[in-house]
Amino acid sequence: MPAVLEQSVLTAIPGPVSKASAKKLDSVFDSRAVHFVVDYDKSEGNYIVDVDGNRFLDVYSQIASIPVGYNNARLIAAAKSPEMISALVNRPALGNFPSAQWYDVLRDGLLRAAPKGLDRIFTAQSGSEANELAFKAAMMLYRRRQRGEGVAWTAEEVSSCLNNAKPGSPDLAVLSFARSFHGRGFGSLSCTRSKAVHKLDIPAFNWPQAPFPSLQYPLEQNEEANRAEEARCLAAVEELIKTWHCPVAALIVEPIQSEGGDNHASPAFFQGLRDLTKKHGVTMIVDEVQTGFGATGLFWGHEHWNLTSPPDIVTFSKKAQTAGYFFGDATLVPDQAYRQFNTWIGDMARVIVSKAVVEEILEKDLVAQCARVGDVLYKELAALSSRWPEQVLNLRGKGQGTYIAFDSPDAPALIKEMKSRGVNIGMCGANTIRLRPMLILEESHIPTLVAAFQSSLKALA
Amino acid sequence: MPAVLEQSVLTAIPGPVSKASAKKLDSVFDSRAVHFVVDYDKSEGNYIVDVDGNRFLDVYSQIASIPVGYNNARLIAAAKSPEMISALVNRPALGNFPSAQWYDVLRDGLLRAAPKGLDRIFTAQSGSEANELAFKAAMMLYRRRQRGEGVAWTAEEVSSCLNNAKPGSPDLAVLSFARSFHGRGFGSLSCTRSKAVHKLDIPAFNWPQAPFPSLQYPLEQNEEANRAEEARCLAAVEELIKTWHCPVAALIVEPIQSEGGDNHASPAFFQGLRDLTKKHGVTMIVDEVQTGFGATGLFWGHEHWNLTSPPDIVTFSKKAQTAGYFFGDATLVPDQAYRQFNTWIGDMARVIVSKAVVEEILEKDLVAQCARVGDVLYKELAALSSRWPEQVLNLRGKGQGTYIAFDSPDAPALIKEMKSRGVNIGMCGANTIRLRPMLILEESHIPTLVAAFQSSLKALA
Repeated sequence: MPAVLEQSVLTAIPGPVSKASAKKLDSVFDSRAVHFVVDYDKSEGNYIVDVDGNRFLDVYSQIASIPVGYNNARLIAAAKSPEMISALVNRPALGNFPSAQWYDVLRDGLLRAAPKGLDRIFTAQSGSEANELAFKAAMMLYRRRQRGEGVAWTAEEVSSCLNNAKPGSPDLAVLSFARSFHGRGFGSLSCTRSKAVHKLDIPAFNWPQAPFPSLQYPLEQNEEANRAEEARCLAAVEELIKTWHCPVAALIVEPIQSEGGDNHASPAFFQGLRDLTKKHGVTMIVDEVQTGFGATGLFWGHEHWNLTSPPDIVTFSKKAQTAGYFFGDATLVPDQAYRQFNTWIGDMARVIVSKAVVEEILEKDLVAQCARVGDVLYKELAALSSRWPEQVLNLRGKGQGTYIAFDSPDAPALIKEMKSRGVNIGMCGANTIRLRPMLILEESHIPTLVAAFQSSLKALA
Repeated sequence: MPAVLEQSVLTAIPGPVSKASAKKLDSVFDSRAVHFVVDYDKSEGNYIVDVDGNRFLDVYSQIASIPVGYNNARLIAAAKSPEMISALVNRPALGNFPSAQWYDVLRDGLLRAAPKGLDRIFTAQSGSEANELAFKAAMMLYRRRQRGEGVAWTAEEVSSCLNNAKPGSPDLAVLSFARSFHGRGFGSLSCTRSKAVHKLDIPAFNWPQAPFPSLQYPLEQNEEANRAEEARCLAAVEELIKTWHCPVAALIVEPIQSEGGDNHASPAFFQGLRDLTKKHGVTMIVDEVQTGFGATGLFWGHEHWNLTSPPDIVTFSKKAQTAGYFFGDATLVPDQAYRQFNTWIGDMARVIVSKAVVEEILEKDLVAQCARVGDVLYKELAALSSRWPEQVLNLRGKGQGTYIAFDSPDAPALIKEMKSRGVNIGMCGANTIRLRPMLILEESHIPTLVAAFQSSLKALA
């Protein structure tokens, strides 16, 4: 068992050393978003330590991306392994010159984590890239079906695409949802709808945006209204697919809209999306960049839905410590080599880390732990919500592991109070506090977390 | 000095072990583009060894991305360093929670390599991403100038951008050149014009494509025609900027069009682009993903131009072993935090490798070596071109280090012959043989390379 750590705050946050360090950095690298500067050597498990010596219980986890704790022993062993050294110093172009170990690393790592029914993979380096690669796979499949299997590209298609013109560069759309976040590349950003700060001034494709259900809480008191809201959104999705000015090749959806405010929908809603996408020949992409790798108390967020058939594509990043997409249908591999391709196609070094993450999660049963700890934590937060009904609103994430959130009238102020009490925690949406602990959070951390909430809420009351 | 190695071919290429290994991989990961499967542990310096035991002199270098040789000692030391272990296992969200070491690693690594006048950096994970980030910086700057410094975003801008509509999502263009390659994301791919296999079936922005000079060789016999050709292209660029249906916020150009066939232009042409972009307020982005890091005998390809003022942005990847962009103008940092942002903002582990690459290049003076070896190699290839004028055409890259290319009527057949003689070499464009050795190629490797060319050309004659 690791030594029992406690949070400890010695300075204002950020402290003077953090501030000076960030200021120096800012002369060469934009540091306006720096929360504090970190001493990673002193950070351990669930605790992050800053350069002023403050120690925080970290339930933000590098924007929901640290899976199994700082300085995890298994990850350190993987980082020191000969295969890692080789991957770092002999960076392969994985499409042209893979090593024999590439297959083994995929089989023993990421593919052990593959969603049911999706046993093929394309690797990438970020969630944005993974989503855009998924869009491209869906679009090439859409046109392949239109063209007919084995039908050759026409000379007009070949020449027009080089000029960004039809028919080679067709109008094809990806449908996404209001308040979604799918990344910041020009394609993924066209699907992102969460905040102007992400999108303003950047050209975007004319792609459809469907409403995402706005559920009312508590769920058990609003069943009928929420069912009607989800039916409304499903009808809007179908209407957009049927009437959009160009074909909708793909639909992308998050199991929980994470940057957009931790917005949930029911399994029935997602089953409805699966039915509609099947009916209209639309590739269903589930963006599990933030929800994947155990964060919701199941390995994949979409496992909560019990779909009648799996999604066509599932994208991942963050806790995977690498990125990419899983798929099952072999026709999502384009008709020719080099169509879905780039120099590195991911990073074998990061895929080796990912293998260690998968091993750690499976061997320590961390998904079950996340589910179990999340249940306890949810109950505690429900009690807080009863005690502070005006400051802890719309508590959500029951049965979703530690993927818990609530709204608060002045969320930034609450974040600041929490930091001053040694809890590093983040926001999303307009006024939502989101919990994004690592999978190794234990029951023993809950009293600390709850006490910090109690005291912070009291200070703000 | 390293042991003297020689190429050695024991089997057909790919050999039986490579074929079996690629076939197994293909069940989970598209392996149709695999040239051969590699034993990286046995690869060393300029030589790559496959799983059948064949050893090749590698002048393709993982699609021009290996800078200082396989299993380089300095890179191995960096890979084993405590800072590397920490960066691998505690992957930071560099915009929110950098370590104090992040500044040091940038200062002692990438920033030592920064082009003159461009002392700021934004890090990324691929050339595609670097280019798209550069586009976004240029677009945000364009709109900032339009809006006026310090003028707040309007409510209409904020709401319309979430719907991908004007004025928040404006029509702004990036001008690129025919035959260029800038990557495969939806924005970067809209600037790529090299091959249909990259672009077909993928929607693209309606952005302008200017002609890139088609120079005639040998240069010294075609000076007047080439000057006229470059003037024609510059006039077309200005016409596009002045008449395009929307503002051209940025222009992106490669110092040598690398995927598109190793197409060169003169310093005067690039100075002309610098003048036009200045005149029209267009951000000039030089894409040095393939030409950067010493490959042309200077650290950056654009240093050959002696510009009167530096490019606004220079992007890099490949030999850097990481990616990003350099810039000088502080207004290319957007007006608010979080506009240019993502979870990881690159990968500190790869930036640590990059630091070792920079150290190796500078301490061993490898850029000068590349220039020197390239001059010798060019002379040898000029002799080959005289001997085989119908098979070695349009030799180019004189004075550009080892960045040398020529056209050949059946380039794929020549590549195959070269492989069978133990030289791993690549193509670009339609029928171009491109040399992309590492910076550590020495004069002593040239006879081997030339003998393989001689014998291959003879076999095909």
